[in-house]
Amino acid sequence: MPITPDQQAEIDTLRANPQPTLRATAPGMEAHLYKAYDVLDHGFIRVIDYMGDDAAICQAARVSYGKGTKSVQNDEGLIRYLMRHWHSTPFEMCEIKLHVKLPVFVARQWIRHRTANVNEYSARYSILDREFYIPAPEHLAAQSVINNQGRGEALTGDEAARVLAYLKDDAARCYDHYAEMISDEGQQGLARELARMNLPANIYTQWYWKVDLHNLFHFLRLRADSHAQYEIRVYADEICKVVADWVPAAYGAFEDYRMGGATLSGKAIDCVRRMLKGEVVTQETSGMSKGEWREFEGVIG
Amino acid sequence: MPITPDQQAEIDTLRANPQPTLRATAPGMEAHLYKAYDVLDHGFIRVIDYMGDDAAICQAARVSYGKGTKSVQNDEGLIRYLMRHWHSTPFEMCEIKLHVKLPVFVARQWIRHRTANVNEYSARYSILDREFYIPAPEHLAAQSVINNQGRGEALTGDEAARVLAYLKDDAARCYDHYAEMISDEGQQGLARELARMNLPANIYTQWYWKVDLHNLFHFLRLRADSHAQYEIRVYADEICKVVADWVPAAYGAFEDYRMGGATLSGKAIDCVRRMLKGEVVTQETSGMSKGEWREFEGVIG
Amino acid sequence: MPITPDQQAEIDTLRANPQPTLRATAPGMEAHLYKAYDVLDHGFIRVIDYMGDDAAICQAARVSYGKGTKSVQNDEGLIRYLMRHWHSTPFEMCEIKLHVKLPVFVARQWIRHRTANVNEYSARYSILDREFYIPAPEHLAAQSVINNQGRGEALTGDEAARVLAYLKDDAARCYDHYAEMISDEGQQGLARELARMNLPANIYTQWYWKVDLHNLFHFLRLRADSHAQYEIRVYADEICKVVADWVPAAYGAFEDYRMGGATLSGKAIDCVRRMLKGEVVTQETSGMSKGEWREFEGVIG
Amino acid sequence: MPITPDQQAEIDTLRANPQPTLRATAPGMEAHLYKAYDVLDHGFIRVIDYMGDDAAICQAARVSYGKGTKSVQNDEGLIRYLMRHWHSTPFEMCEIKLHVKLPVFVARQWIRHRTANVNEYSARYSILDREFYIPAPEHLAAQSVINNQGRGEALTGDEAARVLAYLKDDAARCYDHYAEMISDEGQQGLARELARMNLPANIYTQWYWKVDLHNLFHFLRLRADSHAQYEIRVYADEICKVVADWVPAAYGAFEDYRMGGATLSGKAIDCVRRMLKGEVVTQETSGMSKGEWREFEGVIG
Repeated sequence: MPITPDQQAEIDTLRANPQPTLRATAPGMEAHLYKAYDVLDHGFIRVIDYMGDDAAICQAARVSYGKGTKSVQNDEGLIRYLMRHWHSTPFEMCEIKLHVKLPVFVARQWIRHRTANVNEYSARYSILDREFYIPAPEHLAAQSVINNQGRGEALTGDEAARVLAYLKDDAARCYDHYAEMISDEGQQGLARELARMNLPANIYTQWYWKVDLHNLFHFLRLRADSHAQYEIRVYADEICKVVADWVPAAYGAFEDYRMGGATLSGKAIDCVRRMLKGEVVTQETSGMSKGEWREFEGVIG
Repeated sequence: MPITPDQQAEIDTLRANPQPTLRATAPGMEAHLYKAYDVLDHGFIRVIDYMGDDAAICQAARVSYGKGTKSVQNDEGLIRYLMRHWHSTPFEMCEIKLHVKLPVFVARQWIRHRTANVNEYSARYSILDREFYIPAPEHLAAQSVINNQGRGEALTGDEAARVLAYLKDDAARCYDHYAEMISDEGQQGLARELARMNLPANIYTQWYWKVDLHNLFHFLRLRADSHAQYEIRVYADEICKVVADWVPAAYGAFEDYRMGGATLSGKAIDCVRRMLKGEVVTQETSGMSKGEWREFEGVIG
Repeated sequence: MPITPDQQAEIDTLRANPQPTLRATAPGMEAHLYKAYDVLDHGFIRVIDYMGDDAAICQAARVSYGKGTKSVQNDEGLIRYLMRHWHSTPFEMCEIKLHVKLPVFVARQWIRHRTANVNEYSARYSILDREFYIPAPEHLAAQSVINNQGRGEALTGDEAARVLAYLKDDAARCYDHYAEMISDEGQQGLARELARMNLPANIYTQWYWKVDLHNLFHFLRLRADSHAQYEIRVYADEICKVVADWVPAAYGAFEDYRMGGATLSGKAIDCVRRMLKGEVVTQETSGMSKGEWREFEGVIG
Repeated sequence: MPITPDQQAEIDTLRANPQPTLRATAPGMEAHLYKAYDVLDHGFIRVIDYMGDDAAICQAARVSYGKGTKSVQNDEGLIRYLMRHWHSTPFEMCEIKLHVKLPVFVARQWIRHRTANVNEYSARYSILDREFYIPAPEHLAAQSVINNQGRGEALTGDEAARVLAYLKDDAARCYDHYAEMISDEGQQGLARELARMNLPANIYTQWYWKVDLHNLFHFLRLRADSHAQYEIRVYADEICKVVADWVPAAYGAFEDYRMGGATLSGKAIDCVRRMLKGEVVTQETSGMSKGEWREFEGVIG
């Protein structure tokens, strides 16, 4: 259970107390504020704050004084134009702050996105909770035999049972020793900043993560992608849902031009043109490598 | 007059329409939202949006669920501790968005602060207004004779009059020709992206500028400093006022540790120690260059 | 003439004095070092320094100890794979430092690329040279009648002559007054930081600009694009030439996947699939707006 | 042993093969290139590449054509001036690329410095080596009783032995199970991206890390500081040594103004002034909190 009753009570208190503001508000996002959405076995994402909405993107693009006199339809057209033509700065005018609880090995991937602000729970200063990610059976995947960086089918039978036992037992033992090492009962107690090194990478950490909408879209494009590791993809998927409610027009454009789109190389465009003229193009006559051709076939169906 | 009646009406409309929100609100900042504060002869700053408050800084530093149960006094102590020990990430959790109207030569200094988001009014796309910065007589300063990068006393008499006439006439003539070149009456009309190159650097531009509190403090430390050029310092001074109302505890710590503080070199600390023991230290015995010693004397009074 | 004989002599001296180094060297780039390549009427680009080569990209991607035992062919395949799959960090391992002389209005566009290091000639501290960009007749373009942010045909006849006269005369007069205002002969002399505001945006400035290869490719994709303003595109084109000699494999991949490639939206991919199955798709049945459809037709020829 | 004989042979090959270059070279740095300097029990730092030297800092600050005609002494004075007045951009003109092998919990601190380029060894793609950081007895520190984020004396006797046994045994067992889980002998084999989560935070990883000199100095100021965790400080200390040989003037200024310097608050400066006038100032009359006063006493000795 990711959230304790005490924590839930704090969240309920925050949600019970609206204040008047003159800032742009996004009703779809207000409905999400502070709530914890479960991810994996002990993780969550929570929206802590946000700045801006679809109209704010357009207002910045136009450098206008008020909300502008343009209609919602015009705003959507402008947003789609901006997205299509890689105008990134208007999307940077929206900002979101999330509270995320996630396994350390996921956090290590996540932090590679540098254009964001982060405050992580400090294991130098504080004691980590006894919570570890243990994959559900259907996610206990075998190494892919065709892609060094991918997964195959889920493990089954004895092998699955043995793996689960290792993951659970090792995490439990490492945590027991961690707790014992830092204990100051009848001993000095090891420094927390040292003891933490005994904890495996499936232990949960948490952080506040703040990012602008342009960089969030970049994160989501890479991490909500089908090639991303499952354990970070589920976080990205959950974030996608709240973003869709926050800035519906921008999210719609993102879905069409980024998530649902594809970049074709010069060679690939040439092949499409030839194929549309009726030519039968094969990998051999395409000028592409086998890998590129396979990916190209994936795009054109 | 920086703001037209139409623009003021748009601002009034925005200020007349509070909405409920569950986000952290800063009452001191709500009072500033959208209002235009005059800077120089035609410029202004306006707060368009903000995220977070003093409590949000502490909440992120503690990675806590609610606002925390700590008192305001504890929050202030924590904020001072964070500022003193150069913990920058909690301050990054607050964000501000400004609408700024400013001369181009000021904009060119400002933009050197890279860790911010900007959307500038496009002179490729739109026509610039006929507004130029002309210094008030008391700011028509002579070149400093001791500092290549500074100012001396204000010019007077004929010289002042001649300079003002040049600045006004050249701006007027350049703008007249700009307007004539882009006109499509009876001619094709020069492309706006080319015509703009005829405009001098005292013409006003405007932009939306969004920045986090840590990077804003860095900007203010450099640009509200007495060595900054007057024409950017007045913008920084005006921003300081709204920040003081937005995050009073953080701004107080910033004033004490950054604006009012000073960094001493290892040599300077050594001199202070010797002086406190009663030694008479001179530039010659200090190990410092003349420039360093002069600055050191400025610090210790 | 962008370079004076004295400057050329300094460049020749630098080029006459090779030193042994153990670092990765790119022979194609050594041939360019320090040389000034003319751009526009008084501008140039010069390569001042570089770090890394094609092999360094692969070495970082593999986190290997030496240059690796892989062949050049393998390296090229890996580089194409990295570029195709948006792996940006290995390209960040190469760095280039340029000295650029360029008109101020071009510099204002250029500086919007924030992920770079810049040192610009200071007009607060120093006196700017009397050099202005005056377009060649064939680049004196009219405003586009279909695109607010574009150009049409070149102006002709009286209009062209009038525009050229304005640009030249206004620049000359503004500079004369600038020089007169800062003069300390028989007067105090206006502060340089103020006098510069009388100078139009076609005056030349110069800077040192340092950027990693990933961010340089991003810059080149936007600024060497046919929609970029001509006056910045010619700088991007010149930089492309030296990059092609520096990291031939990376540049080749960039050309194929970025410059020569195109991003299709989800809707566009769907249309391609339908068209390849023999369906006649029109704008009306495509689900795209007129603008999107026109751009789509441009891609598929 | 951090480096295998094969790896050492690769390094020797690289060092045996100087090439001529026209770029700025730093002889002090050439002597370090590629060599592995041991840190902790299995870690190291290696300089892979560098760009620029002391003269390059000055050249960029002056935006000059050649190396400039200034003497080395003038260069040092300029560098000290730039450092003292927080001119950061000239220092950004130098760049260094390191290959670092380090425990994961150190890597997690290190990566918080976002303004750098990183390529880390991928545990999704590859298999990690069986190497763990086990503190030397003198670094097996107890938790500090006065600072939640610090260390006290080294553990001794039974407690020390027990802690060492836990760290060694848990690491060994976790790695054994990791290896067993990913094995494909007689079973499918767990995906590497999952199996890695069983590994504790003292396992070694490695990366290529590239950073400019300004941001490196910022990193070193925080991480070579006496309050930094010992396990990252030893990396910072080792980097300091190579930087001192690379850019001696800049490193000297860094030592005097940053590492050896201190920032005094407005209150602290006021106290110094009063004390220099002969007043006896105590914490009670200083206006400072107890924590601030203690730190202030540390500065003034």
